[in-house]
Amino acid sequence: MNSENFSLSEKIVSSSYVRQGCQARRGHEQLIRVLLEQGKCPEVGWSESTIELFLNELAIMDSNNFPGNCGVGEREGRVASSLVARRHYRLIHGIGRSGDIAAIQPKAAGSSLLNKLTNSVVLDILKLAGVRSVSSCFVVPMATGMSLTLCFLTLRHRRPGARYIVWPRIDQKSCFKSMVTAGFEPVVIENVLEGDELRTDLEAVEKKIEELGAENILCVHSTTSCFAPRVPDRLEELSVICAKHNIPHVVNNAYGVQSSKCMHLIQQGARVGRIDAFVQSLDKNFMVPVGGAIIAGFDETFVKEISKMYPGRASASPSLDVLITLLTLGASGYRKLLAERKELYSHLAEEVKTLAKAHGERLLHTPHNPISLAMSLDGLQTASDGAVTQLGSMLFTRQVSGARVIPMGVEQTVSGHTFRGFMSHYDSYPCPYLNVASAIGITRDDVSLCMKRLDKCLKSLKKVNNHEKSVSTSPPTGRKDLTAA
Amino acid sequence: MNSENFSLSEKIVSSSYVRQGCQARRGHEQLIRVLLEQGKCPEVGWSESTIELFLNELAIMDSNNFPGNCGVGEREGRVASSLVARRHYRLIHGIGRSGDIAAIQPKAAGSSLLNKLTNSVVLDILKLAGVRSVSSCFVVPMATGMSLTLCFLTLRHRRPGARYIVWPRIDQKSCFKSMVTAGFEPVVIENVLEGDELRTDLEAVEKKIEELGAENILCVHSTTSCFAPRVPDRLEELSVICAKHNIPHVVNNAYGVQSSKCMHLIQQGARVGRIDAFVQSLDKNFMVPVGGAIIAGFDETFVKEISKMYPGRASASPSLDVLITLLTLGASGYRKLLAERKELYSHLAEEVKTLAKAHGERLLHTPHNPISLAMSLDGLQTASDGAVTQLGSMLFTRQVSGARVIPMGVEQTVSGHTFRGFMSHYDSYPCPYLNVASAIGITRDDVSLCMKRLDKCLKSLKKVNNHEKSVSTSPPTGRKDLTAA
Amino acid sequence: MNSENFSLSEKIVSSSYVRQGCQARRGHEQLIRVLLEQGKCPEVGWSESTIELFLNELAIMDSNNFPGNCGVGEREGRVASSLVARRHYRLIHGIGRSGDIAAIQPKAAGSSLLNKLTNSVVLDILKLAGVRSVSSCFVVPMATGMSLTLCFLTLRHRRPGARYIVWPRIDQKSCFKSMVTAGFEPVVIENVLEGDELRTDLEAVEKKIEELGAENILCVHSTTSCFAPRVPDRLEELSVICAKHNIPHVVNNAYGVQSSKCMHLIQQGARVGRIDAFVQSLDKNFMVPVGGAIIAGFDETFVKEISKMYPGRASASPSLDVLITLLTLGASGYRKLLAERKELYSHLAEEVKTLAKAHGERLLHTPHNPISLAMSLDGLQTASDGAVTQLGSMLFTRQVSGARVIPMGVEQTVSGHTFRGFMSHYDSYPCPYLNVASAIGITRDDVSLCMKRLDKCLKSLKKVNNHEKSVSTSPPTGRKDLTAA
Amino acid sequence: MNSENFSLSEKIVSSSYVRQGCQARRGHEQLIRVLLEQGKCPEVGWSESTIELFLNELAIMDSNNFPGNCGVGEREGRVASSLVARRHYRLIHGIGRSGDIAAIQPKAAGSSLLNKLTNSVVLDILKLAGVRSVSSCFVVPMATGMSLTLCFLTLRHRRPGARYIVWPRIDQKSCFKSMVTAGFEPVVIENVLEGDELRTDLEAVEKKIEELGAENILCVHSTTSCFAPRVPDRLEELSVICAKHNIPHVVNNAYGVQSSKCMHLIQQGARVGRIDAFVQSLDKNFMVPVGGAIIAGFDETFVKEISKMYPGRASASPSLDVLITLLTLGASGYRKLLAERKELYSHLAEEVKTLAKAHGERLLHTPHNPISLAMSLDGLQTASDGAVTQLGSMLFTRQVSGARVIPMGVEQTVSGHTFRGFMSHYDSYPCPYLNVASAIGITRDDVSLCMKRLDKCLKSLKKVNNHEKSVSTSPPTGRKDLTAA
Repeated sequence: MNSENFSLSEKIVSSSYVRQGCQARRGHEQLIRVLLEQGKCPEVGWSESTIELFLNELAIMDSNNFPGNCGVGEREGRVASSLVARRHYRLIHGIGRSGDIAAIQPKAAGSSLLNKLTNSVVLDILKLAGVRSVSSCFVVPMATGMSLTLCFLTLRHRRPGARYIVWPRIDQKSCFKSMVTAGFEPVVIENVLEGDELRTDLEAVEKKIEELGAENILCVHSTTSCFAPRVPDRLEELSVICAKHNIPHVVNNAYGVQSSKCMHLIQQGARVGRIDAFVQSLDKNFMVPVGGAIIAGFDETFVKEISKMYPGRASASPSLDVLITLLTLGASGYRKLLAERKELYSHLAEEVKTLAKAHGERLLHTPHNPISLAMSLDGLQTASDGAVTQLGSMLFTRQVSGARVIPMGVEQTVSGHTFRGFMSHYDSYPCPYLNVASAIGITRDDVSLCMKRLDKCLKSLKKVNNHEKSVSTSPPTGRKDLTAA
Repeated sequence: MNSENFSLSEKIVSSSYVRQGCQARRGHEQLIRVLLEQGKCPEVGWSESTIELFLNELAIMDSNNFPGNCGVGEREGRVASSLVARRHYRLIHGIGRSGDIAAIQPKAAGSSLLNKLTNSVVLDILKLAGVRSVSSCFVVPMATGMSLTLCFLTLRHRRPGARYIVWPRIDQKSCFKSMVTAGFEPVVIENVLEGDELRTDLEAVEKKIEELGAENILCVHSTTSCFAPRVPDRLEELSVICAKHNIPHVVNNAYGVQSSKCMHLIQQGARVGRIDAFVQSLDKNFMVPVGGAIIAGFDETFVKEISKMYPGRASASPSLDVLITLLTLGASGYRKLLAERKELYSHLAEEVKTLAKAHGERLLHTPHNPISLAMSLDGLQTASDGAVTQLGSMLFTRQVSGARVIPMGVEQTVSGHTFRGFMSHYDSYPCPYLNVASAIGITRDDVSLCMKRLDKCLKSLKKVNNHEKSVSTSPPTGRKDLTAA
Repeated sequence: MNSENFSLSEKIVSSSYVRQGCQARRGHEQLIRVLLEQGKCPEVGWSESTIELFLNELAIMDSNNFPGNCGVGEREGRVASSLVARRHYRLIHGIGRSGDIAAIQPKAAGSSLLNKLTNSVVLDILKLAGVRSVSSCFVVPMATGMSLTLCFLTLRHRRPGARYIVWPRIDQKSCFKSMVTAGFEPVVIENVLEGDELRTDLEAVEKKIEELGAENILCVHSTTSCFAPRVPDRLEELSVICAKHNIPHVVNNAYGVQSSKCMHLIQQGARVGRIDAFVQSLDKNFMVPVGGAIIAGFDETFVKEISKMYPGRASASPSLDVLITLLTLGASGYRKLLAERKELYSHLAEEVKTLAKAHGERLLHTPHNPISLAMSLDGLQTASDGAVTQLGSMLFTRQVSGARVIPMGVEQTVSGHTFRGFMSHYDSYPCPYLNVASAIGITRDDVSLCMKRLDKCLKSLKKVNNHEKSVSTSPPTGRKDLTAA
Repeated sequence: MNSENFSLSEKIVSSSYVRQGCQARRGHEQLIRVLLEQGKCPEVGWSESTIELFLNELAIMDSNNFPGNCGVGEREGRVASSLVARRHYRLIHGIGRSGDIAAIQPKAAGSSLLNKLTNSVVLDILKLAGVRSVSSCFVVPMATGMSLTLCFLTLRHRRPGARYIVWPRIDQKSCFKSMVTAGFEPVVIENVLEGDELRTDLEAVEKKIEELGAENILCVHSTTSCFAPRVPDRLEELSVICAKHNIPHVVNNAYGVQSSKCMHLIQQGARVGRIDAFVQSLDKNFMVPVGGAIIAGFDETFVKEISKMYPGRASASPSLDVLITLLTLGASGYRKLLAERKELYSHLAEEVKTLAKAHGERLLHTPHNPISLAMSLDGLQTASDGAVTQLGSMLFTRQVSGARVIPMGVEQTVSGHTFRGFMSHYDSYPCPYLNVASAIGITRDDVSLCMKRLDKCLKSLKKVNNHEKSVSTSPPTGRKDLTAA
């Protein structure tokens, strides 16, 4: 309420109480002021009360909520369902304009503020998480893969003659498709096996660049966060190579914001060499619903170029989600989540190690992967052909979600390219294995429940297999889906 | 509640009352059953109570809501903020999988159902709205422009050698950018002036095709809904040309679902010639927040191909919005909205005609445009140089949103292409004008308020200009934005 | 947002757009200003957006929402569940103080404002609805019956020697219990049958007063809204009698606000005689959840005395509901509901008349009852003993709610008093009958569905009874509940 | 969804995923089953997802949510505002019937279930909190004071000749008014000073009973939770006295559920003597909004008698709030809150002790009061006349809520009775003091913030007073309100 309304209120209830209410209002306003002024994630999280007040304030700045508005355009932010209006806090106009997803909308000052502030707060968090020299970023309501596609499409205008993208192999369909969809030919660089780890083959990269000619290469497309035993790419070295050959470098940092190691790699890569853009998922790093990504970079002009590539307005929903989340957590809350994740990673590793030992398996040694772990399934494979995939299916049924079972020898063709040893990032990884990960938001309960159920499944499989040793089990229905779940 | 719980309830409250509650539950279940069985928009809208029951039921089928779930993956649908969880009805996993935006997710049966049902219900509505032979469609959480880009990127794989897109001019940035972003060269076909209307120059299209060679042309990119005095493209004839030359045809049907004329054009085009895909905005046709589009077509295989192009999972938010909206309205409710819009179009036309006359202007004669109207501003222009843009600014300040003022002689460069007479779809339209539209959800109040304010503005401008005839007014700040608002 | 924050916003998005948002904010503030200034129900209803903004503003004035508050009392407005906090808009402190339910709370300026404004807006509506000279009222979170009890308890302090309450009979348990609970002895005045109507026996009232002695009578307790064939009490005459004998007069106006007739009776009673307080239900008159009442009167001192009788703070929930509702409807919306109700009353009467005729029954002639109607069930009774109650049960099962079936000869003892012909307000009403009512919010669909189902039930009962004429049917389980539903 | 709908879903998405969703649904159903079966607070709290599912299920059992319902009664659960409907989860019919607040409503099986389950769960919690032999209770949507009134009104019917209520003094207006409102004469028993504590004067009670005659006494009305230095009444002894004299005994246990000591006193009292009913606040014990109380007892018949005294239906809002809260917390969560409160009580006592010492004051020694603490303000009083009340005002302004300052010598008349030394429960307590309490939900931050601010206030007052020693300060405006806040 404005001062006039506070004065009127003093005639209705005691003025000293109203004054205190007014003072409290200033408390909320003050938090909003700091946000508007600094554009940073507040150190301490806001209460739901402040957040909803703020969102209400933004909403009433949009023309669809003007009490006296009359609309005679083709897009007036009208909403047919009040359920829908409410769930969006009546922010209906989305973000951006036809020319630029980061642009300001005349009809929607509130939504525009939301958009600008979100990008600014997210930038602050990227710095906090380790990429201190990032200069610009924006939230885009598309998957990580499609966002990578947008980066590649933008680069095409800078390198109209280029046809290839050099890509150290990672077995995740959307990574591969992001290049194909953009109309480029992915050049797959197989990983090298070092101990248990699968690492970037830098020599192969260099060789391939020379073979194809730098001018024909759109960019190098590297990856940080990935399933063990693959580990983050050697970003520093790749960045140096890119700088040397004057080739753009785009990093898929899908769920890497949650890991200081991944973020450090990007920071270092940019420092010693060249990184043009790095892309990360909103949902995987910020515990929001699926559907958004952050495109970030070190050169504001290039990031702006990407944002101008998106034709049309876009959904404000992912921006709204991440803004609410970061205002709720505050920088301190987010840091706390990061610390807990790290701690539970060590705990999970210990637990898997112990369990593996008990079943005659071992935790693969993948110290460079800060999030994902792999446990060998040699024994299971020996026991019976289908046992490995059966384990995946059993875990799924027992509501262990996210545990991936990787059998040997799977072949899969994606957009015309055939991958041998699919899902293991390698043509012939020495053993089948099980992946588990310590991702942001994981709890101690998740770990202990998973271990308990995994233990039971392994025991039960062993028993069955001992009995039916010679009987070949048919793979369970929907096998591929289950194992890749 | 299941039957066991109903039985237990009978021990607590009278069994005859519980039985009636149980019977009422079946009433809701029955509505859901019909939806699942037929996949169509219900004729009569559902109550909010049924809708929320249904969404709750979907949500508990997703793994993030399993009471006994433990998650050890990198993406577990965890949500940090309860505000965020609630606004998404706890449907967190988005839609699609890494390989296909229309695919089913093992972790999220509920979200997958939501996705499938939405696409099915939306398909039903496209038929109801006039494209009876549409065979397949899907909702994509991207703007119309970016969705067009996705269509073009898909076509690239079918026509790897093609470089051009033939495009009858329409002055809307995102249409143009959708082609540029996809990496193609738009070939602009200027419109022809027929009476007051701007229509497709079919001869020029044919000539250009012959000039460039059909095999070098990715597709023809035509438009239905647009601002008067441009009218929908001659879809039938264009479709025949495309069929003849074996060139794909993609239609931008941005806000055309709300107009039976636009939908009829598409239906006819597909019947007599070739339309590969047509794309429409969710927000402009279904009164939901900005951010989604429907990609539809007559060949299921091709539509599936497009859906497989999107790399990664995507936001379920636009799907959720349109599903809630259509279940709320029902087919009958949507039909009623369409009828009202049509009726108010005639009303608006009458009102503009009268007002124009009173100010010595006229309603441009654009009978082929079923949504947008234009009123000449000759007198205003004569009065003073800046008066036309000033009118735009005045209307904006007076909360008339969506009214566009088109001065003469604006030049604008978009992605390297310079458009003369920008915003008027024509190098040199004979007069400046004002656009108003009767779009879905418009009310009689919108019309009368707009007319009243417009009348006042025109009067006030006339007065000022009479006084200051010779004084040149400086254009208001942010002029371009205001006029294009 | 305050002006400082708007200024900061102008640095982030264009200042002309922010200014417009700021202006829109003033639009909402202006509505709130008028409410605070005048304390009246706004003529035109507010949008949900304005209402929620307003409730948010109130909430942040309460200490439990102060960002910097620390609480060391025994009642700090802490809330354990965020679901609970949200559904109360974080207004937790309730209304009133230990000494007075209408008092202001130091800790809760917002809740106090809510309380004061609600009472003020409700007073305005009582005037609008016909009691123009009402001087004071307050919302109390108790049923109508308990609110009547509170009035009687207050009167006790004024008339410590009085033991009796004179009460023209109305067969509704809570009316009777309201007196017994307060510790008084109800003196039942039987109604007189005039035509089909049951009306107040004024002579009997006077006689009883003389018999008991005015000083021994706490008050006369009369009733307006009631089930036909009883009609509202003769309030004018009763008021004159009370004035003459110097006896307080309390009116049970349960659902009478919705009827201009009932309200007119109160207005007239107060004008020509004496009415000390009149009590009405919130849910029955304002379409809000069950649980609140309005206690109103013509003497501010006495109303204040009642409000001071309630020991302790009270739930703000009913106040919040009615305030939201009246702000949503506006005075014009409420007037419209009243007009529709009246119109549907005539429609319902016509329909019942026709249906009754078709089944050889008749609509009882009760022109003084403006809400409830009765249709004779003579034929049904003749057909079979249980048929009348069976009809009640059948209607219940067919989801006709609120239709009451009144068999003859029911005897019921309530708090020690035995009523013959219970439910019919008369020892021996000449025929059994069915009640239906046209209450606020009723729709044309309600009427036609009810008529259709009633018709079917009557037909089906006739058929059964013709077949089984001599077989005595056992009454359905839960008979009493069903008929009194 | 029912099994038929699950089957249909399997045709749309993979059946193995649907089966898992179906299994998850059973997980939620199972929780609900246990609740329905046992009627106890679940040990582990439910997720919001389960709670909302459950409430939705209840709502659809009420007639106002029947898809096919038609209503022709005077009370049909219609709701005008969707904001209102939603915040009540569409449970509109309230609880109880005209004859009994605990009765089942034919129209509202869901609301009736809610009512029964809430009472059952709350009973379970009362046992858990220490009154193991409680046999019956119900939630009533009235303040503690009004609920006590209802108990007294019920007792009147058992003891029609009784006029007095014997009441060991506690200075809280609503306690006193609860008796006056019911129409009885409170007989105030002054407390005795034992050390710093104010305790029940048992001899005076006995003497008064003999003086008035047991048959003239409605009941003894004792208190557990109260502000130090008063301590809970000697319940055991009072209960024995009541049993001996055959006088009913009603205990005001306002915020005593949170203290095992208070609950133990009640349990013991009932074991060795007589307690007819004990009444506690919902908001003060369960962190829900103000407005409800629990009336409990050891004799089911008597508790039922009280519930039948409430004339009319009542608001379900407090029941809904406490049910949501207890399902959210679970028994374990509630126990945890109790443990934390106890721990923080000790912490608070330590802190006050230290602070008091530093300022030359002392923590009064009141070991029998488990919740409230008092710190002397002798020095402040000596310094200046108004300093004590000024401290109250200063703390209020600094957002320390709930701290009460008790000056000496306040006289106050409540409903005709004059209390000397009002607020201190004693005619002439030896010193002025400050109250702070450790109530449920208090945090360590509350304690430290309060200590910091209190320290500052005391320092600042000392400074001022040293300077202005001889200047008499005028009491701040609204003094009484502030100190009693």
